[in-house]
Amino acid sequence: MNHDARAWAEGHRSYFEDQLRSLVELPTISMDPTRGPETEACAEAALALIRHFGGTATLLRVGGKPYVHGRFGDPGRPSVLVYNHLDVQPADEPEWKGEPFRMRIDGERYLGRGTTDDKGPALTCLLTIAHAVRRGSPLGFQLLWEFEEEVGSPHFSELMREHRAALGNVRAVLVSDTLWVSAEQPSMDVGLRGFQGLLLKLRTAEVDAHSGVVGGGGPNPLAGLVRVLAACFDASAGRILVPGVLDDAAPVSEAEMDLYVRSGFDVERFRSTYGFRRLLASNPRELLRRLWTEPTFEIHGISGGYQGPGIKSIVPAWAEAKVSLRLVPGQSPAKVVESIRRFVAELDPLVEVLPLGSAPAFVTSVDAPECKAMDRAAERVLGKGLALTRGGGSIPAVAIMAEVLRAPVLLMGLSLPEHGYHAPNEFFDWTQARRGVELYASWFEELERLSVRG
Amino acid sequence: MNHDARAWAEGHRSYFEDQLRSLVELPTISMDPTRGPETEACAEAALALIRHFGGTATLLRVGGKPYVHGRFGDPGRPSVLVYNHLDVQPADEPEWKGEPFRMRIDGERYLGRGTTDDKGPALTCLLTIAHAVRRGSPLGFQLLWEFEEEVGSPHFSELMREHRAALGNVRAVLVSDTLWVSAEQPSMDVGLRGFQGLLLKLRTAEVDAHSGVVGGGGPNPLAGLVRVLAACFDASAGRILVPGVLDDAAPVSEAEMDLYVRSGFDVERFRSTYGFRRLLASNPRELLRRLWTEPTFEIHGISGGYQGPGIKSIVPAWAEAKVSLRLVPGQSPAKVVESIRRFVAELDPLVEVLPLGSAPAFVTSVDAPECKAMDRAAERVLGKGLALTRGGGSIPAVAIMAEVLRAPVLLMGLSLPEHGYHAPNEFFDWTQARRGVELYASWFEELERLSVRG
Repeated sequence: MNHDARAWAEGHRSYFEDQLRSLVELPTISMDPTRGPETEACAEAALALIRHFGGTATLLRVGGKPYVHGRFGDPGRPSVLVYNHLDVQPADEPEWKGEPFRMRIDGERYLGRGTTDDKGPALTCLLTIAHAVRRGSPLGFQLLWEFEEEVGSPHFSELMREHRAALGNVRAVLVSDTLWVSAEQPSMDVGLRGFQGLLLKLRTAEVDAHSGVVGGGGPNPLAGLVRVLAACFDASAGRILVPGVLDDAAPVSEAEMDLYVRSGFDVERFRSTYGFRRLLASNPRELLRRLWTEPTFEIHGISGGYQGPGIKSIVPAWAEAKVSLRLVPGQSPAKVVESIRRFVAELDPLVEVLPLGSAPAFVTSVDAPECKAMDRAAERVLGKGLALTRGGGSIPAVAIMAEVLRAPVLLMGLSLPEHGYHAPNEFFDWTQARRGVELYASWFEELERLSVRG
Repeated sequence: MNHDARAWAEGHRSYFEDQLRSLVELPTISMDPTRGPETEACAEAALALIRHFGGTATLLRVGGKPYVHGRFGDPGRPSVLVYNHLDVQPADEPEWKGEPFRMRIDGERYLGRGTTDDKGPALTCLLTIAHAVRRGSPLGFQLLWEFEEEVGSPHFSELMREHRAALGNVRAVLVSDTLWVSAEQPSMDVGLRGFQGLLLKLRTAEVDAHSGVVGGGGPNPLAGLVRVLAACFDASAGRILVPGVLDDAAPVSEAEMDLYVRSGFDVERFRSTYGFRRLLASNPRELLRRLWTEPTFEIHGISGGYQGPGIKSIVPAWAEAKVSLRLVPGQSPAKVVESIRRFVAELDPLVEVLPLGSAPAFVTSVDAPECKAMDRAAERVLGKGLALTRGGGSIPAVAIMAEVLRAPVLLMGLSLPEHGYHAPNEFFDWTQARRGVELYASWFEELERLSVRG
């Protein structure tokens, strides 16, 4: 326990709840082109939050959505850069029990889109920085809040190129957008999968037509896409079939898998969290290998034709499939796109393959003193050291920051599997927020000691 | 030309247009459960139309939507029963250039959902009957207008059972819900394909989940359905792969195919009507075989997951596919469902297969004197005899009427391929309406002569 940080957190609980509500109630859905005004309003609110605690705050713009940049302390000082994102996924699922963009408090749970991914953790980081500043930490602190994480951070490289100098001397980067293996077992990701989004489009006619009149003679584009997708991916085995895609995927050693299996990941808890009727592997080692270290191929949605009540017996004129792959170290997003393009073109030259956002995979070293410091902080505050895990998701900014800032990047988030990243009825909870303040505060103290020693 | 009938038609053109507008502007979408009030209003409007010309008109109800029944002349007389339907397909296609349920007149074209399928032809039949009555035809006439044709006529059998007696002595049935092979070549269908609608459902989880967190471990139901659908149907060859489905499909003789090829069907006109980028056969004989005499498997829409802007990187919890098959003589809808159920259950026991409406295929004999009479009428009025064709679509009422009424059923519609059955920007045109009045009027006269001779 970190008594001082805990008291600070508890003293700011109602402030945290009020501010989280304000952020959640701005639907900053980055993939919805109509949400510009809400994004700008959220960016302004974020500036005000930082200034409330005495930081300087500015909007950085490089095209696309703004970035919120906050700074505490003398810019000349080595600083800890904390990255979060304030954009969110859409919330169109029918399973939402309340308005997704009205925050609801249920006991210590905060329900609403963006509460855990990633507005709650962002606010937790800000609270911790404010605490460190108040007690006179010799470290500098910077906040970088993005509004395009959920669409693959298309402008992040440009941001780093244009504003590298302004970021100055960065001692370490904290990314608080990852998940613990469970509420009982804090964990730190040592890697993330990459991402490649794709849109597959097939137009076979000018207009939808009566399937009694043209059926059997005119091609069905939904059936055409189905054929192509089934050739790309074997859903039964969960295996990618496109030649070349898996060629460069780096295998993971059994020793590393041992580490992951020891993390405390529980197959039944994983199954029941999402209510899966079946899994692609039931052995924990195999399941973790698939979730953390292997590429995926997912179909997110198929458009075209008719989806209303009953059957509208048409042969549609067009169909589209939204697809993405998670990538692992070794795989190049560009090469993956090229392999799929070539394969699909051979199957059906009418199918267009359009890339939609990408990020390479990322792995870090856990031997860095900053990582060991986080482990010590966890031991002290949470009563147990960090399990080491990989994140199956993707944060495009991570690889870019690691390369440009040449500082260790720690993937140390606060979310729990049951919080429902990208899912209906997403929530965050006060215990995780309070633990976050304690954990990060202790890590800052560890870093100060490292700096003194170093 | 039938001078008297033509003058009658021309004299009623503005009446026809006004009444067609009234019918079209009631969106009688039978597969939309919220359209009950519009359907009842349309049924009332239909009663008024029949009474306007001195017929008696009642609503027959057997559960489901009402049927409009009209009668002209002494119920004891042998009558011609004319079948049409007043329900329509949805009109949700983005390609509509105007409001689908506001009729727009463009030259002699009447644009709007239902104009050609089947409100325009229904009104044409009514006009012709009124003409025959006015000139003192010795025949009786009955009209039967349905509101559930587009959802597979689920109550038609029951209607026939309960109201057979009221229909009395039926001399012949005219179904004016079919298409000419082209504007230059009137044609009569000697058969129709049957229909079997299916909904395939796959739920693999309780909630949509982040594909970075569960991807690779949790199954993707869209990919699962894609696998099953691809195993059922080879979109490249346009071939059904489900064992048993094709077993009882009656082959068509080359002599019969010769007849169809001579109908004047034109491959390039077919292609350009719908703007197909490719066809499943380019040889006219092969294309006609596929369109008129072979079963189909069409995917009409696939739901589940995310279809909005951008990519929402989730593993969906469920997916559904709307599918239908057109059936040919010999195939039993129930046996087809059973074959698909068995096949799909082997592939993936979690996939549910739910039947959604069905109709057997239908073939008639062209040697019936009533058919020969229609051919003579066409020769006289349109200057050329009827090409014989098959209809690739399905009209469930047809097989039921043929069986229950034991009268020849003539599939002699007025629509043209370019009118856009089930398609956006559907239209009907005055020339076809006027030709219809002339053709049907002459057929009635032929029937009177047959009756005298017979």
